[in-house]
Amino acid sequence: MSAGDIDTARRQRFVQGFLSHVPHMATLGIAYRGHTSDWVELEMPYAPELVAYPDTGVIASGAIYALMDSAAGMSVVLAMGTPGPIATLDLRLDYLHPALPGETVIARSTCYKLTRTIGFVRGFAYQEDEARPVANMAGTFMLPSAA
Amino acid sequence: MSAGDIDTARRQRFVQGFLSHVPHMATLGIAYRGHTSDWVELEMPYAPELVAYPDTGVIASGAIYALMDSAAGMSVVLAMGTPGPIATLDLRLDYLHPALPGETVIARSTCYKLTRTIGFVRGFAYQEDEARPVANMAGTFMLPSAA
Amino acid sequence: MSAGDIDTARRQRFVQGFLSHVPHMATLGIAYRGHTSDWVELEMPYAPELVAYPDTGVIASGAIYALMDSAAGMSVVLAMGTPGPIATLDLRLDYLHPALPGETVIARSTCYKLTRTIGFVRGFAYQEDEARPVANMAGTFMLPSAA
Amino acid sequence: MSAGDIDTARRQRFVQGFLSHVPHMATLGIAYRGHTSDWVELEMPYAPELVAYPDTGVIASGAIYALMDSAAGMSVVLAMGTPGPIATLDLRLDYLHPALPGETVIARSTCYKLTRTIGFVRGFAYQEDEARPVANMAGTFMLPSAA
Repeated sequence: MSAGDIDTARRQRFVQGFLSHVPHMATLGIAYRGHTSDWVELEMPYAPELVAYPDTGVIASGAIYALMDSAAGMSVVLAMGTPGPIATLDLRLDYLHPALPGETVIARSTCYKLTRTIGFVRGFAYQEDEARPVANMAGTFMLPSAA
Repeated sequence: MSAGDIDTARRQRFVQGFLSHVPHMATLGIAYRGHTSDWVELEMPYAPELVAYPDTGVIASGAIYALMDSAAGMSVVLAMGTPGPIATLDLRLDYLHPALPGETVIARSTCYKLTRTIGFVRGFAYQEDEARPVANMAGTFMLPSAA
Repeated sequence: MSAGDIDTARRQRFVQGFLSHVPHMATLGIAYRGHTSDWVELEMPYAPELVAYPDTGVIASGAIYALMDSAAGMSVVLAMGTPGPIATLDLRLDYLHPALPGETVIARSTCYKLTRTIGFVRGFAYQEDEARPVANMAGTFMLPSAA
Repeated sequence: MSAGDIDTARRQRFVQGFLSHVPHMATLGIAYRGHTSDWVELEMPYAPELVAYPDTGVIASGAIYALMDSAAGMSVVLAMGTPGPIATLDLRLDYLHPALPGETVIARSTCYKLTRTIGFVRGFAYQEDEARPVANMAGTFMLPSAA
């Protein structure tokens, strides 16, 4: 087992521990999926209580936002290297097409820049195919030093 | 009872009927609060499953987004005058300060412009004081004619 | 002459002095128009070098952005009460319809919230009629304390 | 000379021809830089009339927006495959750090999704180093079919 593997396992435990202590994430069934040095992914399984359009079973744009916001916050925490209170400053989502009913939604976020007070994030949500995203995300977070 | 009152009551029933058929809105406890010719308000009572920060009881930015997205969609439907399938195209939220634990959050949205294919919305979320918003919103929706 | 008039005149000189020292604002012909305690307005006269669509004479969305960004920054400086280096953190513009050729564009911005490190702005651009905006704006600025 | 080279040359002439007919782009000195099947790049040389901060020579955030907006529109036109009237619907820019005085700014945009009525774009602006962007962009454009 390499140092990288240890780091991966530790990071995974850290994120999962974090998510399990957040009631709203637990309510939505949001879980850790994976990460690289560039991005982190969270996932949200399909569930009836996420549905916005009962006729078609399409889930709410708001649920996809909550998933992306969580992944974005997680990418900021991982970029900071140490846990600490952060807060969404602003976030924009573009919705490209309805999420497929019955399928898990995956959110991938990158914190591509940290200043002393701000973390900048971008990412996207997808289902079975990364090349066909459901939503695109851009946003900023306040860091603990600015709180 | 004036024609205006009848219209108000009918509009209220329409919105409440709409909300009760959307599972995700029911999950979050989102309800109709009021409207004028300029805006519509929805509200979301405080609930443990909305919490993002267990230490302080502050609710998730994602839950506030879901509320604003719902109010925004409702303002578009009311501006169109007839129900029809609409979809969030993109939405941006700015978060001004954490929502107060234990307090209902209210979202007010105005659909300030309709084209043939797009509805433009703006609004804000607040708790006890309109002049001290929790979040500011700007966004666009796709109309049925563009679907 | 009341204290309020003096304050208005001083504020106007301050803004005009500021604008005249910014080469890019001078290039675009941007000038002070007015303000209240709630908002500040800048204006940009129609000019051939702002045109994006030569067939119709419609000016560039980028020129309207530059005007709104300037008005937004000005509203932050006025809200701070003292001049100081600020920087656009992020800004979103929604374009509602093409600007009328030959007509001045006016940008109104409100800095509706200041924290220690961030100024939040919203506003709109219009031509002859406030009720028929050309563009809607939402954004954030970094304050000197965060630089 | 391969078919690909011919296509590249034709595409370059098309973009340059387009830019030279837009007065506002000519005013800002915006020119074609390059493209792949994934993205297009425009560039804007440093010039005194773009400066926002005379003390430091830093150019206006509004000028960077105009460059990104142009690159974004170009990426939509290239994705459509045929020229046609498009219009910015909404655009968001995040500013990561001031642009270096004296250096050209390059904007890269990808139109990552086209529907019948909307083109979705994302991209970034940089100077000497792609990995250290000056600004991040997300936006939508109206297509001719929705006009």
